[in-house]
Amino acid sequence: MAAMQDIEQGIEFAPKFDENGLITAVAQDAETGQVLMVGYMNRQALDSTIQSGYATYFSRSRQKLWKKGEQSGHLQKVQQILVDCDQDCLVLKVTVDAGQCHVGYQSCFYRALDKKTKGKLKFIAEKVYDPRKTYNSS
Amino acid sequence: MAAMQDIEQGIEFAPKFDENGLITAVAQDAETGQVLMVGYMNRQALDSTIQSGYATYFSRSRQKLWKKGEQSGHLQKVQQILVDCDQDCLVLKVTVDAGQCHVGYQSCFYRALDKKTKGKLKFIAEKVYDPRKTYNSS
Repeated sequence: MAAMQDIEQGIEFAPKFDENGLITAVAQDAETGQVLMVGYMNRQALDSTIQSGYATYFSRSRQKLWKKGEQSGHLQKVQQILVDCDQDCLVLKVTVDAGQCHVGYQSCFYRALDKKTKGKLKFIAEKVYDPRKTYNSS
Repeated sequence: MAAMQDIEQGIEFAPKFDENGLITAVAQDAETGQVLMVGYMNRQALDSTIQSGYATYFSRSRQKLWKKGEQSGHLQKVQQILVDCDQDCLVLKVTVDAGQCHVGYQSCFYRALDKKTKGKLKFIAEKVYDPRKTYNSS
């Protein structure tokens, strides 16, 4: 109980990584409040983020550190790192340019469940850049 | 490739549950944009959320469905469900009353990493209700 109280009410930063050594991190636009993406960090990615000031995640598909924007140029400059009550999740308040999602949208959350047609999605955003130009260097 | 393109650019809602049968869900205040909490849903919790219009999660610690606010009364009325590019994460735009976190704050993210004192947190919010009165029914 004491330990949980410390975690929830204390000032020690004690991020809780899961069985895979990862913690969930929500990137939120510091100005608009828009949720841009959700990624995962291992200890090294978190340390790198804190030290560099730019969001670095751990890519689960590629199993390696991934500085957001290292290829696309769409970096996330970290203004503030929030942690939740049980310290198993982070919110990164970030400053970004136009186009955070590799599909071409500002946010990865560019579709919403359509209430009228059950099980279908509707697009709620317009693309802000052409990913073919960004990712095809040939 | 075609499958991935369908997932990312299509209108079929095909939420991807992880090896534990869960998908991450970020609850965001529909009015203020504040990130309130991050929870997890299994298929049943997601179906229940869609059908009832109120956020229902799967509690990993208690290993059971958990309708947010069933004990505290602080329900989350779902206005919109967004899904990200690879459909392994949701954002729930929710309408809430005062006090979403069981510790007494409006959001679970009531602390931020203090840039001045490395490794320490600072409180960035005030409590909005007294959780002892809410959760102690004795």
